[in-house]
Amino acid sequence: MGHTIGRWIRGAALLPVALTAGVLAYAQEDDIAARLAALEESVSGSASSYVDNSYLFLIGGIIVMLMAAGFCMLEAGLVRSKNAAMQSTKNVALYSIAGLMFWVIGYNIAYPGAWIGGDEGLKFFGMPAMDAFFWAGGDLSVESDAGYAPASDWFFQMVFVATAASIVSGTVAERVKLWPFLIFTAVLTAVIYPVVVSWEWGAGFLDTKWAFSDFAGSTLVHSVGGWAALVGAIIIGPRAGKYFGKQVHPMPGSNIPLAALGTFLLWFGWFGFNGASQLAAGTAADINSVAQIFANTNMAAVGGVLAAMITTAVLYKGKIDATMVFNGAIGGLVSITAEPLMPSMGQAVLIGGVGGILVVLAVPLLDKFKIDDVVGAIPAHLVCGIWGTMIVPATHGAAFMPNEAGDPNFIGQLVGVGVTGIFVVAASTVVWMLLKLTMGVRCSLEAEEMGLDKAEIGLEAYPEFTSG
Amino acid sequence: MGHTIGRWIRGAALLPVALTAGVLAYAQEDDIAARLAALEESVSGSASSYVDNSYLFLIGGIIVMLMAAGFCMLEAGLVRSKNAAMQSTKNVALYSIAGLMFWVIGYNIAYPGAWIGGDEGLKFFGMPAMDAFFWAGGDLSVESDAGYAPASDWFFQMVFVATAASIVSGTVAERVKLWPFLIFTAVLTAVIYPVVVSWEWGAGFLDTKWAFSDFAGSTLVHSVGGWAALVGAIIIGPRAGKYFGKQVHPMPGSNIPLAALGTFLLWFGWFGFNGASQLAAGTAADINSVAQIFANTNMAAVGGVLAAMITTAVLYKGKIDATMVFNGAIGGLVSITAEPLMPSMGQAVLIGGVGGILVVLAVPLLDKFKIDDVVGAIPAHLVCGIWGTMIVPATHGAAFMPNEAGDPNFIGQLVGVGVTGIFVVAASTVVWMLLKLTMGVRCSLEAEEMGLDKAEIGLEAYPEFTSG
Amino acid sequence: MGHTIGRWIRGAALLPVALTAGVLAYAQEDDIAARLAALEESVSGSASSYVDNSYLFLIGGIIVMLMAAGFCMLEAGLVRSKNAAMQSTKNVALYSIAGLMFWVIGYNIAYPGAWIGGDEGLKFFGMPAMDAFFWAGGDLSVESDAGYAPASDWFFQMVFVATAASIVSGTVAERVKLWPFLIFTAVLTAVIYPVVVSWEWGAGFLDTKWAFSDFAGSTLVHSVGGWAALVGAIIIGPRAGKYFGKQVHPMPGSNIPLAALGTFLLWFGWFGFNGASQLAAGTAADINSVAQIFANTNMAAVGGVLAAMITTAVLYKGKIDATMVFNGAIGGLVSITAEPLMPSMGQAVLIGGVGGILVVLAVPLLDKFKIDDVVGAIPAHLVCGIWGTMIVPATHGAAFMPNEAGDPNFIGQLVGVGVTGIFVVAASTVVWMLLKLTMGVRCSLEAEEMGLDKAEIGLEAYPEFTSG
Repeated sequence: MGHTIGRWIRGAALLPVALTAGVLAYAQEDDIAARLAALEESVSGSASSYVDNSYLFLIGGIIVMLMAAGFCMLEAGLVRSKNAAMQSTKNVALYSIAGLMFWVIGYNIAYPGAWIGGDEGLKFFGMPAMDAFFWAGGDLSVESDAGYAPASDWFFQMVFVATAASIVSGTVAERVKLWPFLIFTAVLTAVIYPVVVSWEWGAGFLDTKWAFSDFAGSTLVHSVGGWAALVGAIIIGPRAGKYFGKQVHPMPGSNIPLAALGTFLLWFGWFGFNGASQLAAGTAADINSVAQIFANTNMAAVGGVLAAMITTAVLYKGKIDATMVFNGAIGGLVSITAEPLMPSMGQAVLIGGVGGILVVLAVPLLDKFKIDDVVGAIPAHLVCGIWGTMIVPATHGAAFMPNEAGDPNFIGQLVGVGVTGIFVVAASTVVWMLLKLTMGVRCSLEAEEMGLDKAEIGLEAYPEFTSG
Repeated sequence: MGHTIGRWIRGAALLPVALTAGVLAYAQEDDIAARLAALEESVSGSASSYVDNSYLFLIGGIIVMLMAAGFCMLEAGLVRSKNAAMQSTKNVALYSIAGLMFWVIGYNIAYPGAWIGGDEGLKFFGMPAMDAFFWAGGDLSVESDAGYAPASDWFFQMVFVATAASIVSGTVAERVKLWPFLIFTAVLTAVIYPVVVSWEWGAGFLDTKWAFSDFAGSTLVHSVGGWAALVGAIIIGPRAGKYFGKQVHPMPGSNIPLAALGTFLLWFGWFGFNGASQLAAGTAADINSVAQIFANTNMAAVGGVLAAMITTAVLYKGKIDATMVFNGAIGGLVSITAEPLMPSMGQAVLIGGVGGILVVLAVPLLDKFKIDDVVGAIPAHLVCGIWGTMIVPATHGAAFMPNEAGDPNFIGQLVGVGVTGIFVVAASTVVWMLLKLTMGVRCSLEAEEMGLDKAEIGLEAYPEFTSG
Repeated sequence: MGHTIGRWIRGAALLPVALTAGVLAYAQEDDIAARLAALEESVSGSASSYVDNSYLFLIGGIIVMLMAAGFCMLEAGLVRSKNAAMQSTKNVALYSIAGLMFWVIGYNIAYPGAWIGGDEGLKFFGMPAMDAFFWAGGDLSVESDAGYAPASDWFFQMVFVATAASIVSGTVAERVKLWPFLIFTAVLTAVIYPVVVSWEWGAGFLDTKWAFSDFAGSTLVHSVGGWAALVGAIIIGPRAGKYFGKQVHPMPGSNIPLAALGTFLLWFGWFGFNGASQLAAGTAADINSVAQIFANTNMAAVGGVLAAMITTAVLYKGKIDATMVFNGAIGGLVSITAEPLMPSMGQAVLIGGVGGILVVLAVPLLDKFKIDDVVGAIPAHLVCGIWGTMIVPATHGAAFMPNEAGDPNFIGQLVGVGVTGIFVVAASTVVWMLLKLTMGVRCSLEAEEMGLDKAEIGLEAYPEFTSG
């Protein structure tokens, strides 16, 4: 008992310590709780990764927007001067129409709330939501659950549509009539492109059933534009005088420095196109990935340029072809677009390099079939778009068939490429043919000879430079 | 008592718990306090929203800076080739002068520490602070209370001044002498523009008494440039041979693709112009708003392009006018600048669309009065600037008069538009007339015919392309 | 004892308080610990300054990438039309080669893990690390210890190499053969530039022994390009017909508006070049500095433009020289590149202004020595690069000799400028001479007269504009 009491006394001796510690803890507690709350508010108020993510879309979006200027310069430089004002005007107009259509209906189709046939169905055609026509942003005062500003995403998606439309413009230049072209653009950006996008980025059948993988759109954007351009080139036919018999009459571009500028602007914009397709930048892992995508994207373009230079130097007895070099860059960029993150930088050079070679080989092939692609958009965007998509599994474990892990696989990629091709060719054929049968798609021979600048917009691109 | 003792004993039995809890709390406390301190330093050191805000100004600023290139290309493309080198040089020079003047005095006038007449006075002319000439940045090592890097704000403000100056340049092209033009630019950017800005963004009478609302400067930037251009065009007179009797002699631009490039660069820069005028990006609400402004700004330009296309097609029998389309984009952008956040995207299309129509209608109107505006800057920047400003209340509750809530209202907008017009017209008249009476503002007829390139800079824009 | 017992009792009376406080503290503790942990994860997960830093490199990097387009436009505009397609092609190719070489070996040399001769040795030649050829990014899933995404830094470094290579391209235009030029570019970007960079940014002898200071590369980038260009111009010789006796035959540029565009694009890109060389943006101090660098960089270009305008107006009887104005901007930008942060904005104007004057004075000087620099790159990049480097100590305490504090000092700067010059001149001479003796560096007189477009790439820049 004495022992017990002694224990109690020793225990009690510690009482003041406990007391002090407890009370002090309680007091500090208040301070810490207040500091913690302040910090929480600061961290939440600053919305750090929310802002970082939104910046990615906004900055990425505007530099992709500048790709519209890039296409404009490339095409204005590669058409003959008598059509250069028209081509410039078309590019401003198509960018506008793409934005309008994607707002009215395109976004709604691309990211459907539900599928016709239900979630167990084919997931082929989305069911547009009645309240999602005329896309609107939602509550600006709160963080969106998506983790980024809603309009930043819409904006970023919108400039992608415009890219697809720009591709068509170059191929069918110098003979397509303005209004049918713009109507085709409207249908492409309102329906055709969004349907294809819904299959993959909208969580449709390519995504859920085939593990189709297309990071930034080699197939979904570039091949869609390329297929539509191909159908347009066939239905509209080649420029007058381009082909007689087996001979190909060259019709050189009128302003090569502008085409070079266009190439650089496209290259520049592609950092946004691929980099911001990472879709987030608020964590170390995300921003590391964005940075790696920048480096890989650049290396693929480098590969495309050098491969095109070397290939043309070999094929053309030491002379390189400037337009092939420019298209080599674009071909390299399209090739890496389906997977700009997983390849090593060396693989990126190779993937882009093959793209550059494909461009050089595909141009004469098209001529052989008398398919007149004024700026070489079909080789760069369609051929390289397919190549870039098909090589994806090679840097992802090289699965052959869809598997349980959902790895990218060759069959899935082939299905994606094929179904996209079939759908876009079919839909484009219907639209181009309807336009041909109703209002006509091709300007008169007279207008073509005079140049579309004079014929359709009553103003010449370079009134003082040419004797015309 | 036994009961009491029992209570004590039971109480004492809890002593070790209290003891443990207290001491443990105290120990953990240390750990938590340390972690909290580390976190506080990390959060404060990373200065997340401070950085986000500053980035908004810096990125916005450089892309607005690129608008100088946009104006340069638009104007170089729309003048005749004999003046294109001069026009390019002027654009480089005016951007430089604007920056210099805004540094020397402009910023000081635009954001006055005090008002002549005091805070109860008219708040019309600010009292420049003696220590604020030659703007300097302050302490780089600490967070500015403003919530963003001081120089980021200065830089962003500076590129706005340059925009106002760029507007004048296009209107008076092809006949104004270089040095008088540059002196006018210096006065415009040192005094005229800053005084107008002080009324609103510098918390002067338009802001405090009229609830005038001009988000990014339809009136403060674009109409200021437009009024100064209008006065210049009248005082300098039209180009030789432009008008005889009631006839208007067209003098087509020499390089339409460059004008298209200029349009795209302006469009691109406008995302910074309007978007970064949100002035903050560090919270979800702010970045959501920036994103919505991007989307709305784009839709207004879309509306301007399509409206100008359709209007010219209707007026000119199916032919669209390329320069009208380009100016339609700019008109749409100017129209949405006074309020790019509140409108829905559909309203943005409409606001921009009306702007595009106004451009098409205003151009012949100016010609009727023999006001020779070489690039169409007055319709796009002045007319659309007024339109954009007047429509602001419509998306803000449509107050008619200033009210207690400080809502934007039609009378306030009218006062802002009117006072700005009166002041800029008066000041510009004084400056242009002084220049006319002293050194002359107009080059000789001989120089005009020869072209300013040869006459004033001794170098041709395109020495190999033209027979001249 | 009663007293003692009383004390105990009073003490014990506080027991419940201690108890409550302790237990409560313990409970709250859990809550606070959980909240703290959540916050820590959020803060760490959002990686705020890591992302901010990486963004600085990525955004800075892409706008420096656009300087490649700027050089391309400047050069395409300043050569004669018969060489403009070639010049455009070269610019696309050199940007590609620079990227490839810097990836293969350049980065490894520039940032050596060890020095030949060891850390106590000269630190002149780095020892390339065996595992650092073909730069690869490292683990994407974790924060790099460097505090930014690894590939963002690589990308930013890579666009600097391309800048150095671009400088050479303009000087030797219109007569250098394509392939030797590209091989020289490869050596310059693989070895010569990286060795120089290793001395300073790679922590070599200029950094550790001389306190050499070159913030963004007036010497390391611009003078390296300038020296290589100078040697090239001398070894290749002037264009045919440029000089006879003491007479200089002017060969005016073919497209001045493109040169203006190039100037604006370079100016735009320079915000990234200098601003992102702050290397961090995640704290208030860093972003304040980045912002101040933007403002100073702009003011130096302003100074360069205005000084070149005034100087040419004085020298050439009132006529200003457009190409001098453009090069004045570039000269001003190069001059501020060695130290864009410390100068006041007024000092920035002066530093840039002297640069602008140097450009105007150096151009005729080169002509006197019959050194044919087609675009004026040597005055702008080499002369101003030296000037900008030598003036650094003036805004840093003006130390004359290296001191213990490691301040920038005139002797150190002189050593840096001198050793760089000697090394680059020697290395470039070897490479250019080897090329001259093996494959030849200069096209035939026939090719030069015909123009390199036809001779080497079989395609004209402007086939419809010139009678040629």
